[in-house]
Amino acid sequence: MVENDGPQLREAVEALAPHTGRAQIVGITGSPGVGKSTTTSALVGALRARDRRVGVLAVDPSSPFSGGALLGDRVRMGEHATDDGVFIRSMATRGKLGGLAWSTPQALRVLDAAGCDVVLVETVGVGQSEIEVVGLADTTLVLLAPGMGDGIQAAKAGILEIADVLVVNKADRDGAAQTVRDLRYMVSLGARTDAADGGDVQERWTRPIVRTVAARAEGIDKLVEAVDAHRDWLDRSGEGARRRTRRAEAEIQAVALRRLQDRLGDLGGAAALPTLAARVGSGELDPYAAADALIEALGADGRG
Amino acid sequence: MVENDGPQLREAVEALAPHTGRAQIVGITGSPGVGKSTTTSALVGALRARDRRVGVLAVDPSSPFSGGALLGDRVRMGEHATDDGVFIRSMATRGKLGGLAWSTPQALRVLDAAGCDVVLVETVGVGQSEIEVVGLADTTLVLLAPGMGDGIQAAKAGILEIADVLVVNKADRDGAAQTVRDLRYMVSLGARTDAADGGDVQERWTRPIVRTVAARAEGIDKLVEAVDAHRDWLDRSGEGARRRTRRAEAEIQAVALRRLQDRLGDLGGAAALPTLAARVGSGELDPYAAADALIEALGADGRG
Repeated sequence: MVENDGPQLREAVEALAPHTGRAQIVGITGSPGVGKSTTTSALVGALRARDRRVGVLAVDPSSPFSGGALLGDRVRMGEHATDDGVFIRSMATRGKLGGLAWSTPQALRVLDAAGCDVVLVETVGVGQSEIEVVGLADTTLVLLAPGMGDGIQAAKAGILEIADVLVVNKADRDGAAQTVRDLRYMVSLGARTDAADGGDVQERWTRPIVRTVAARAEGIDKLVEAVDAHRDWLDRSGEGARRRTRRAEAEIQAVALRRLQDRLGDLGGAAALPTLAARVGSGELDPYAAADALIEALGADGRG
Repeated sequence: MVENDGPQLREAVEALAPHTGRAQIVGITGSPGVGKSTTTSALVGALRARDRRVGVLAVDPSSPFSGGALLGDRVRMGEHATDDGVFIRSMATRGKLGGLAWSTPQALRVLDAAGCDVVLVETVGVGQSEIEVVGLADTTLVLLAPGMGDGIQAAKAGILEIADVLVVNKADRDGAAQTVRDLRYMVSLGARTDAADGGDVQERWTRPIVRTVAARAEGIDKLVEAVDAHRDWLDRSGEGARRRTRRAEAEIQAVALRRLQDRLGDLGGAAALPTLAARVGSGELDPYAAADALIEALGADGRG
């Protein structure tokens, strides 16, 4: 229902609202090939061994080529397929603006209300939308692997600062120690930045760096400990409530903007988007004047 | 002015409108480390040798850590720094929804009006926003490198289907032939998909696969030829006009949605976003009802 965005979705989301707010949302991100699916699968195993109910959302940019068929994710998750305590879903955006931003919070809401203790959100890639999606998490794991691109590349891609826990996967490979050293340096830079903003130092969270070999489940217990410690810190520091409110803000805004976008696209006559776009394309009209026309036709120009 | 989004921007964009529509916008994307900056720099050199005026936009997700300071891009572009026929700018999104989607078209508009023959847009990462940005281009180059992740990974990241030209950079490395074979297979899959949709087969564009070693400028002339051939095809097939209109649509919509988003954030009282978010966070309200309240307060509910 979330993916089809049908009329029943609204009803379901209304009914679920009172049952939400319990699950810990854990985002898992990093460059392609770093081992996100393997790590996710290993985490599911470790969490199930602790009797936690687990949801998994694998978020992929839409691909007409792959259509999910080339993805090995679901295959790799196969060992958990018959476990009632695990729910796994691959979600693709449909190319609509704010696609992931819109559907991911809704899906999280469903898994939360369904009684998951932990929901793992695995995102492919390290782009801005993925950062936005992972920004919705309570706890964000950023995965790196030796030789996949060093700390500088990770900083360049803008993913280090969203990490609550840094994971160096494939830690049995050459260069792992160097990657850990790079990360420690980056974390120390970040700590100094944090300290400069004058917040409460006692309740500060210092990002742990965990080494794993997910394919052999090595280091996964330590990773679960780090995730649990972060959840405790979220509760203790009040940051957890702040992130839940931030997630709700993003969700409300995404629903409202999607509705407004639909209405913009539905406008006819001189305010029809293709008509305006043709005039802007030819240089006859500028995009601001075109946007004014859209907003006026929508009745949201404050003059209606 | 584009980056600061001040009041003069609108005036400037209005004045520039009649002078736009001439430049070929060339998007350059691929995973971190694949050699995008080196390739961009080599392309600038080759285009300048052909006496073309060149603009370069390097689009990075914002990073409080790096703040651009860790980026080597501008350093690597140094050889072009004193050439009046080249304009180079790194742009960072400021974390606002639709940040790149909003500022990139505006910046392209400025460079187009300034008389650039070609504008190269280099995006870091392979995420959804980057795909959206590159989707604004007339011609999209997707870079891969042997051993950086194979064709399957590229398909997984959703970047193959946006390519007009596929570039295997670092083609002197082991595995280059395999990467080319993988891509050829993917392109053949895509061609069959295209053929199935019943369009005009004669005017179809077959994605070329170009091997380069950008660091030594090898293959760059062939790459320029492929870019030129694509521009000719855009003109001949009418696809160029279609893409310009699509770009204008995206631009108008981004300006309108950003303005609506600002208004949503400015609402006060019971419709204030933090107030609604706190109620949604506690489960008292569902996000649809909250979005209704926002839209109603905006006067865009069609009932005002």
